[in-house]
Order: sequence, then structure tokens, then C-alpha cells
Amino acid sequence: MNPRHPAARHCPQCGHAPLEQCVPPGDTHLRLRCPACAHLIYDNPRVIAGAIIDEGGRIALCQRGIPPGVGRWTLPAGFMEHGESVEEAAAREVMEETGMRVEIRSPYSIFSVPPTNEIYLIYRATLVAHETEPGPESLQVQWFGANDLPWQEIFYPAIGQILTRYFDEGLTGRHGVYSGSMESGHIHFIS
Amino acid sequence: MNPRHPAARHCPQCGHAPLEQCVPPGDTHLRLRCPACAHLIYDNPRVIAGAIIDEGGRIALCQRGIPPGVGRWTLPAGFMEHGESVEEAAAREVMEETGMRVEIRSPYSIFSVPPTNEIYLIYRATLVAHETEPGPESLQVQWFGANDLPWQEIFYPAIGQILTRYFDEGLTGRHGVYSGSMESGHIHFIS
Repeated sequence: MNPRHPAARHCPQCGHAPLEQCVPPGDTHLRLRCPACAHLIYDNPRVIAGAIIDEGGRIALCQRGIPPGVGRWTLPAGFMEHGESVEEAAAREVMEETGMRVEIRSPYSIFSVPPTNEIYLIYRATLVAHETEPGPESLQVQWFGANDLPWQEIFYPAIGQILTRYFDEGLTGRHGVYSGSMESGHIHFIS
Repeated sequence: MNPRHPAARHCPQCGHAPLEQCVPPGDTHLRLRCPACAHLIYDNPRVIAGAIIDEGGRIALCQRGIPPGVGRWTLPAGFMEHGESVEEAAAREVMEETGMRVEIRSPYSIFSVPPTNEIYLIYRATLVAHETEPGPESLQVQWFGANDLPWQEIFYPAIGQILTRYFDEGLTGRHGVYSGSMESGHIHFIS
């Protein structure tokens, strides 16, 4: 369970507790249901949108400034918000965490993380302008190549796997779209 | 606001009402916050996973058996659940709504719908076995080509746009990955 999204204990519509678990008629999954007002709570996976910004073979990483993992490195990425497209979310997160305005180019990874109920939607992007300092979520932003990237200090395993693939592919000059999870998946070079 | 996901009125952790709106320190978005226990409610867009199953140029559509849109047609697709990858969600939804076991092949559409806070992740898939009847969500399943598809009876506009593109591309024999929204986006033919 993601600590940002703990399971409900009270009904968000009427305030009643305790809630009960049931599989509603016609449904296939256990849901939390309010026995007082019959409200059903649907809790679904969340999308993390982000980008790989490549400048001549070096990519921008953020050193985390807020828990968890303060001081460790990751791609600029974060939870998608209401009212935006995935591309808009990725560009917004990049601006917040790096201060860079980017152009989102092409999907790079549809990476499911079932243990944390998250989906990383990572895009390739190009730098338009480095406008401001990064916000409080980042201590600093640095550009890294495969040889000087702090591989042991990457915070999220999914991000480490995405970066490993990116630099491996860089040697071939050919990038596809990965879809899968940590354990299995495919790179799709659509022709 | 999606009727399945109404805004909370009571705190799901302590039951208090009313909630207040605030931008938490270090955050950039308005959140619902409980003034009694300080719990913050994060409400994020939801992923709908589904598939285009193509058998010799004809694709499987479901006639909706539950509201909204009873009697209208759509691709087999539905809300992703916790503990599964996007591919697993797409295959599960196909089984529930068509009775077909499929192999999920390649991503086809990353389609954001900001007005309803949904993201359609649609894959191309191939039929493995038609195992059972569809569940209660579908009145029936039929195979359609571009010429006999009930274009005026497709329920979700995003699905209509995805199907239009699919059959347009079919004439060229070349499928890419679309990423975007109803208004703008790009088809990525990655080489």
C-alpha cells in the first residue's frame, strides 16, 4: 500500500465506519462498501508521468530533495493530475523538478509496477529552455552519461531499469517503446 | 467528475466533515485536506486498459450491457485494478467482456481524456481461444470490418477516434503508437 494512499477507514460520502468488503453484483473485484449509505470505493492504480531529456547523449537526473530517498537520483517524474494529458503531466513534472521547459517527443516506456499500483509513463523529450531553478522536490539537477551516472544511487528500481535500457539502446541508435513490468515485457520497434 | 468517483465529503481516515481545500507546502495543486487529522486526499486520473482484437481485418466489439450507453458498441476495455500490469488488465477486461483469451501484442494508443480524468491504454491483441460467453457487461460480441462497423453507435468518443485511425491505417498495413488526446497528438512510427 502506498503511504500516500492509505485504505479508507470511513466512508468518504457519509463518514460511517467501519466499511465492509464485498464483491458488488456484476463486479469481479473486492471493494470497500459503506453499509450505511451503500457507497462503493474504487481505488485504482496511479500514473507517474516523466521524461528522459537527452542532450548529446547525456540525460538530466534530479537529486531527490524530499522523502523518500533524499539525496538519491531519479528521472523527473511524478503523479499525473486531473485535467491534463500524459504529455502535459510529463512536461509539468519536468518543469517542477528541473526548471526546464521541454518538448515531449515520443513514448518510451509503459512500465507497470503492480506491487505499488503505479504505472510509469515515460517519454523522450528535448530541452527547449532551462528557465528556472528546480523546485523543492530536487536538491539539484545534473546531466549524466552512461559512464558517470550514479547507478548505485538511483532511487526507484523501475527508473534504474528504464535508464539501463536507454543507454544500452543508445549504442545502437534505435529506441523503441517498452511495455511491461520489472519482470517481463517487450520493446516494440514498430515498423 | 466521474460519477463512479465523486469528490470526498468526509475524511476517509477519521470521518470528519467538512473537508477544506488547500495547496499543501511544497505542492502545486489544490487538495482536499481534513482539518481534524490533517489527512490529505490525492485523487488522480484512472487508467482504462483494453484491446483491439483483429482477426483477418475484422475486430471484436462489445455491445454494452450495463449503463451508461446500454446497447451501444465499444472496444473491450475497463478500469485497471490494483496488483496487475497494464497488459494483464487489458487481457482480463477482454476475457470479462468478450469471453476471449487473447495475447496482448503491442501498445496502440496512449489516449488521455482530461475532461473525465481517464487515460485509455489500448493494445493490439490476437485471439488465442474463444472460451466462454461474455459477462454481464456485454449484451453480445461481434466482429466488424470498416464497412459494417456501427460507427454511429460507438459509445465513447475516444474509442471512435481510435477505431477510425485503426481502419485508416489498415489500408497502409502500418500501425504506430498514438500518444495524445482527442484534440492533439502524434502517431509514432518508431524505426
